[in-house]
Amino acid sequence: MRSCNSTITLTTDFGNSDGYVGAMKGMMLGINSDLLLIDITHEVKAFDIAAAAFVLRQVIRFFSAGTVHLVVVDPGVGTARRAVALRHNDQFFVGPDNGLFTLLLETDTPDQLVELKAPNDGPLSSTFHGRDLFAPSAARLASGVPLEELGTPFAKLKHLQWAMPIDDEEGIRGWIVYIDHFGNCITNISRALFEKRQTGRKTKGYAGSGIIRGIHNTYNDVPVSEPLMLFGSSDLLEIAINQGSAADLLHIQRGTPVNIVFGDLLDSASSHQ
Amino acid sequence: MRSCNSTITLTTDFGNSDGYVGAMKGMMLGINSDLLLIDITHEVKAFDIAAAAFVLRQVIRFFSAGTVHLVVVDPGVGTARRAVALRHNDQFFVGPDNGLFTLLLETDTPDQLVELKAPNDGPLSSTFHGRDLFAPSAARLASGVPLEELGTPFAKLKHLQWAMPIDDEEGIRGWIVYIDHFGNCITNISRALFEKRQTGRKTKGYAGSGIIRGIHNTYNDVPVSEPLMLFGSSDLLEIAINQGSAADLLHIQRGTPVNIVFGDLLDSASSHQ
Amino acid sequence: MRSCNSTITLTTDFGNSDGYVGAMKGMMLGINSDLLLIDITHEVKAFDIAAAAFVLRQVIRFFSAGTVHLVVVDPGVGTARRAVALRHNDQFFVGPDNGLFTLLLETDTPDQLVELKAPNDGPLSSTFHGRDLFAPSAARLASGVPLEELGTPFAKLKHLQWAMPIDDEEGIRGWIVYIDHFGNCITNISRALFEKRQTGRKTKGYAGSGIIRGIHNTYNDVPVSEPLMLFGSSDLLEIAINQGSAADLLHIQRGTPVNIVFGDLLDSASSHQ
Repeated sequence: MRSCNSTITLTTDFGNSDGYVGAMKGMMLGINSDLLLIDITHEVKAFDIAAAAFVLRQVIRFFSAGTVHLVVVDPGVGTARRAVALRHNDQFFVGPDNGLFTLLLETDTPDQLVELKAPNDGPLSSTFHGRDLFAPSAARLASGVPLEELGTPFAKLKHLQWAMPIDDEEGIRGWIVYIDHFGNCITNISRALFEKRQTGRKTKGYAGSGIIRGIHNTYNDVPVSEPLMLFGSSDLLEIAINQGSAADLLHIQRGTPVNIVFGDLLDSASSHQ
Repeated sequence: MRSCNSTITLTTDFGNSDGYVGAMKGMMLGINSDLLLIDITHEVKAFDIAAAAFVLRQVIRFFSAGTVHLVVVDPGVGTARRAVALRHNDQFFVGPDNGLFTLLLETDTPDQLVELKAPNDGPLSSTFHGRDLFAPSAARLASGVPLEELGTPFAKLKHLQWAMPIDDEEGIRGWIVYIDHFGNCITNISRALFEKRQTGRKTKGYAGSGIIRGIHNTYNDVPVSEPLMLFGSSDLLEIAINQGSAADLLHIQRGTPVNIVFGDLLDSASSHQ
Repeated sequence: MRSCNSTITLTTDFGNSDGYVGAMKGMMLGINSDLLLIDITHEVKAFDIAAAAFVLRQVIRFFSAGTVHLVVVDPGVGTARRAVALRHNDQFFVGPDNGLFTLLLETDTPDQLVELKAPNDGPLSSTFHGRDLFAPSAARLASGVPLEELGTPFAKLKHLQWAMPIDDEEGIRGWIVYIDHFGNCITNISRALFEKRQTGRKTKGYAGSGIIRGIHNTYNDVPVSEPLMLFGSSDLLEIAINQGSAADLLHIQRGTPVNIVFGDLLDSASSHQ
C-alpha cells in the first residue's frame, strides 16, 4: 500500500512532446516505485514563473497533507540561483528559488526551508536540474526522507510579489493575471476587495474592447456569445463570454488593465447587481 | 491492493494547460488515495458534447466492469441542467445531463440513473461542478458507495441523437462525424449498413474534393499520399490518406457530406471491390 | 503490491485528443489492473520513427530493469512489417519492426527477439495494432509472461541507422536531429567526438542564420536572447538561445547542417573555449 505522503505533483514548462518529463518520472520511480505521480501541467509557457505559480495556486489546497509538489520552471538553471525544498502548511515543494514559491505561497518564509545539496549518487548536468536534482529530491521527500536531510537550512526565499489592484471609493483598477484554455480572463481582483468597495452599487467593467455591466453567477446567466463578469472557481473576478473566448473576442491579453466603476450608472443594467 | 472497481477515467474539454484537471484529481485522491485515474483526453473541443461522446465510445468497451467514467463537457454549468450519475452495462458514468450520455450509450434509459445531490462537505461553486460535484461523486462511486446514495432516481436522460445516414439501393449519404489527430475522417456509415447496401458491387465515394474508388483494408494498401476508404478500428467508414491528412488534403471538415455510390462504374477501379 | 517489473511506458504518435491511447490503456488494465502506465509522449510527429527513437533514447536509462517500453509509431500498420517484442539490457520493448528499435538501441540484434503472434482472445483490426496486438503483449510481458511465449524467435531487427557527422582536423559537419519544445536544436555531434577533434582550439559553429563562438556550460552563460552552443543533458551538442527559441530565431529545422570549425579564429571569442 502507498503511504499517505507518497503523492508527487508535477508542474513544468517542458511541454508534452519531448522526453524530459519521462526522464524525471523514471528517475523518481527508480527511487520509489510506489510513488503516485500526478501531472498538473507541463504546458506552462516557457520560463513563465508567474503562470506556474498561478496555476498551482488553484490546485494545492485540493491535495492532502504530505503531498510533494515538484515545480520546474527554471530559466536560471545552471546559475547561482538556489535549488530548494520546503514545507509549508503540511505540504512540500521542490524546485528553483526564483520567486515562484513566494508567489505561490505568498510568503518568503515558509515553515521549513533548505537549499538542496547536489546528489551524491548521480551526475548533475548543468542544463537539466529537473531530472538530476529536483526529481530525486522530491522522490526522497515523498518516500519519508526528512526535509533537513536534503540540504542546508536558510532563511528566506527569493522575493517576488503579485501586483495588487488599486482601489478607492469610485472603483477598482486591476489587471488580467491569467487567461485559461477557454479564453476566460482572470483578474487580480478578489471577491473580498470587490464586495468591500461595491457597497451595493451598480457595477460596470472595462477590459480590452469590452464594457460589461453587473456581476453574474455563472456563464449561462447571459445568452451564448455575450460577455459577462463573474467570480470564478478561485473567487477572483473573471471576464468571460458564455461559450466563447473573451480573450479573443474582447482583445484581452495577460496584463490588460481592468477598470471597475461603481455608482448609479446612466443607463439601467439588466443584471441583478 | 486496489479493489476491482477503483478505476476512474477522465474526459473533459479543460485542456492540459490550466489547473482544472489537477484540482479534480486532488479532490478525488483526497477521498480515496488508491484510485487509479486514467486520462482519456482533456482536449475535447470546448463545449463539444458530440466529440466527447464519439471519443469515449471508442474507449469504454476496453475498460472493466465497475470502471467509473467521469465526463465533464458542460456548457450549461450552473444552469438547471441536471448533474447525474448512472450505471449501464456494469460501468458507471458521472457528468452533466446535456445529451452527452445519450449519444454515448445510445439510450436515454440506462440501467440505473440518479440526479446528484450537492456535496454536504464542501462548497459548490457555480462555475466548476467538475471539481466540486462530479469528481467527488465519481470518487465515491469508485470507492464502493452505492449509486443510490449519491442522489435521487429519475427516469430519462436528456435525449440527443446522432444523425443517421440516408441509404437506398443506389448508395448511401452520410456525414463526417469526427476527424482524428492524423486527419483521418470518420463517417457515420457503419460496416453493417455498407455491406447491406453494397451487395458485391463496385464502390465509389465522394467527400470534400476527393473521389475515391473501392474499399481497402489498411492505409498501406495504397501508395503513400494517396487517398483511400476503409473501415477503421471502430468499424465505421473512414476517408484517409496513407501517411497524410485527408482532412487537410481533401478539404474535409466535421459535417462534410460523404456520398457512396454502388454500381458498374464507367472506368475500372484498381481496388479489390 | 506491484511487482518490480510491472511498469509500462507509452510512446506514440497518436496525439492526446482522440481515444486511441485510452483504448490501449483500457486493454492493458483489463489484463492486469496493477500495471503502472507512464506516458512518455503521444506527440511524436505522425509517422516519425526517428523522432520517437530520439525521444525514447533520452529516457530509457532512467527506468528500472524489467520496464516494458511500448512504442507505437507505425506507418506500416497492416502490412507485412513484423510486430515484435524484445529484451535488451534487461528492459523490454514492444512495437512494430520498422527500424525504430535499431535506432533506439543502436543494434539490430538485441538480447532476445520474437515476432509477436496474433492474440487468440480478441480481434485483430488491420488499422490499430497498438490496441489489438502491442498493448496486450506489453501487458502480458509486464505481468511476468516470458518473452518466448509471446511469439517466434527471429534473428535481426530491420536496420536503420543514424546519419553520422563527418569530421577531420579542421572541423565537424553534423546535422540537427531534433528540436525540442523550447526550440533548442540538438545535433548529432557527441561530446566525445567534439573533444577528440577540438584539441584545445577555439571553436566556431554555423547553423541556420547563426554564427556562434565557443562552447558554454549552461544557457545562462550568455545574456538573455543571445545564442550559444552547449552540451545538453544527453551530451549532444546543442544550439540554443538563452530563454528563446533557436529554431525560430536562427531559422533552424531538423536536418539543417551544422558546421563546427576549430582554430585560431580571426577575431577573439568572448567564451572560455
